[in-house]
Amino acid sequence: MRFTSEQRLDDGVLEREFTLGEIPGTLWTPGSAGSSGAAPVPLILMAHNNGLPKAEPRLVARARYTAACGYAVASIDAAGCGDRPRTAAEEQARAELRRAMRAGEPVDEIFESFIGPLVEKAAPDWRTALDALLALPEIGGPVGYSGWTAVGIRLAATEPRIAAAGLFAGGYVPRAQREEARQVTVPLLLLLQWDDEGNPRQRALDLFDAFGAKEKTLHANLGGHTGTPWFELEDGNRFFDRHLK
Amino acid sequence: MRFTSEQRLDDGVLEREFTLGEIPGTLWTPGSAGSSGAAPVPLILMAHNNGLPKAEPRLVARARYTAACGYAVASIDAAGCGDRPRTAAEEQARAELRRAMRAGEPVDEIFESFIGPLVEKAAPDWRTALDALLALPEIGGPVGYSGWTAVGIRLAATEPRIAAAGLFAGGYVPRAQREEARQVTVPLLLLLQWDDEGNPRQRALDLFDAFGAKEKTLHANLGGHTGTPWFELEDGNRFFDRHLK
Repeated sequence: MRFTSEQRLDDGVLEREFTLGEIPGTLWTPGSAGSSGAAPVPLILMAHNNGLPKAEPRLVARARYTAACGYAVASIDAAGCGDRPRTAAEEQARAELRRAMRAGEPVDEIFESFIGPLVEKAAPDWRTALDALLALPEIGGPVGYSGWTAVGIRLAATEPRIAAAGLFAGGYVPRAQREEARQVTVPLLLLLQWDDEGNPRQRALDLFDAFGAKEKTLHANLGGHTGTPWFELEDGNRFFDRHLK
Repeated sequence: MRFTSEQRLDDGVLEREFTLGEIPGTLWTPGSAGSSGAAPVPLILMAHNNGLPKAEPRLVARARYTAACGYAVASIDAAGCGDRPRTAAEEQARAELRRAMRAGEPVDEIFESFIGPLVEKAAPDWRTALDALLALPEIGGPVGYSGWTAVGIRLAATEPRIAAAGLFAGGYVPRAQREEARQVTVPLLLLLQWDDEGNPRQRALDLFDAFGAKEKTLHANLGGHTGTPWFELEDGNRFFDRHLK
C-alpha cells in the first residue's frame, strides 16, 4: 500500500490517496488517529452503489463526516468500478443500459448481466484492501461496511471480519446476492428511499425480509433516489457506534 | 387541573398524578423545569396503543426517559381507556375479542367496532388535557405526540398544535383513521415491528405510504410485538429534538 498524496481537512481529518497494486483508494482518518499513544480506530469500508467512483462528492461527504466521528473510512475503485478500465463487454452493457432506460424498456436483465459480474469482480479487491488497511498501525478492528448493497452482501456473507453493515437499497441487487442475503447474520441497517424512482420498493422490502440477521433495522424516507436526509448519516454512525466501538 | 401526588425520581424528573374533571393523568417534567428562570419545555403527549393504561410499565419507562431528555411528557386515561369505566357495549366487545382471538377467528370487524368508537371518544379528552397542560407555566410549545397510532392520526389531522408525531404501528387502526392519514402533514416517525405477531405488516406499510406528510420516516425492527429495541426510544427523542427544540 503506497500513499500518493494527503491533505488535512478543517476538522482535523486526514485524507490520503493510496494505491494498492492496481487498486486506487482513499483513506480518511480522524485527527487524533496515528498520534503517539492514540488507540487504533475501527474501520468502515464505504462503497457507492453500482460501482460509482470513490471520488463522487456524496460519498466523499459521508466519508469525511464519518471519519470526524472517530472512524477510519476507506473507499476504493474496485475492478470495473469508478475510473478503472472496463472491458469491451462492460462498456457495451453500460451503453445498452443507457439506451434501454432512454427508451423506457425493462432493464432488469441488462442490470443482471452488468452488475452481477461486477460484484464478482469487485469483492476480491475490497478484501485485498481490507487486508492492507488492517495492517496499518492506526487502524484496528472491528470492521463495518457502508453503502453498495450487493457488494456489502457478498462481503458480509463471506468475510468474517465484517461486524456490521449499513446498506443503501438504491441499486440493482443481482440474483446471487438476493440469495446470499440469507447468509448475512451481522447486525444490519438498510436504508430505503420510499419514492426512489428507479428502484422497486417491494424488492427492497423483500431483501430486508430475506436477511438472516437477528438484528436488522430498516429506515425508509421520502425524497427520491438521492434525497436521503442528512440525519440518516448521523443515525448510521450511531448504528456503527453500537456495534464497532 | 388538580395535582394529587408527586414524586421526584432519581434522575431529577418530577412525576405528578393529576385529575382534570373525570380524566386521570400523569405528568413527567425534567428536573430543571419550573425552577426560577428556567425556560418552558416542549410537551409530548404519550398514549398507549388501543387505550392501554397510562400506568403500564413500558409506557412509564418511555415517559421517564423522555422527560429526562428535556421534555414535559403527559399521559392520560382517556374516556373508555385504561381504568376508566366502560359501557356494557365496550365490555362486550372486549369479551368478544378475547373469545375470537382464542378461537383463532378473524378479529378485524370486532376491532373495528371496538377501537373505532374508542378513538372518537378518547380524542376529545386528549384535547382537553392539551389545553390544560399548555396553561402550566413550566410547559411551552411546540407539542409532540408519541404512541397510539389511531389517536395520533386523529389528533395530528385535526389539532394544529401538534407539530410532530412518533407512532407505533402495533395496534388496530380503524378505517376512519386510515382515511384521515392523508390529512396528516406534520413530520412523522412510524415504528414498525417487522415480525409483530398480531398486526399485519402490509397494513402498516400501506399506512406509512398513505400519510400526507412530506417528511415521514419508517423504522422497522425484529423482536416481535413488544420487542422494540431500546435504541428506538433514543432515535425517537432525536426525532422530537429536530422538530420541537
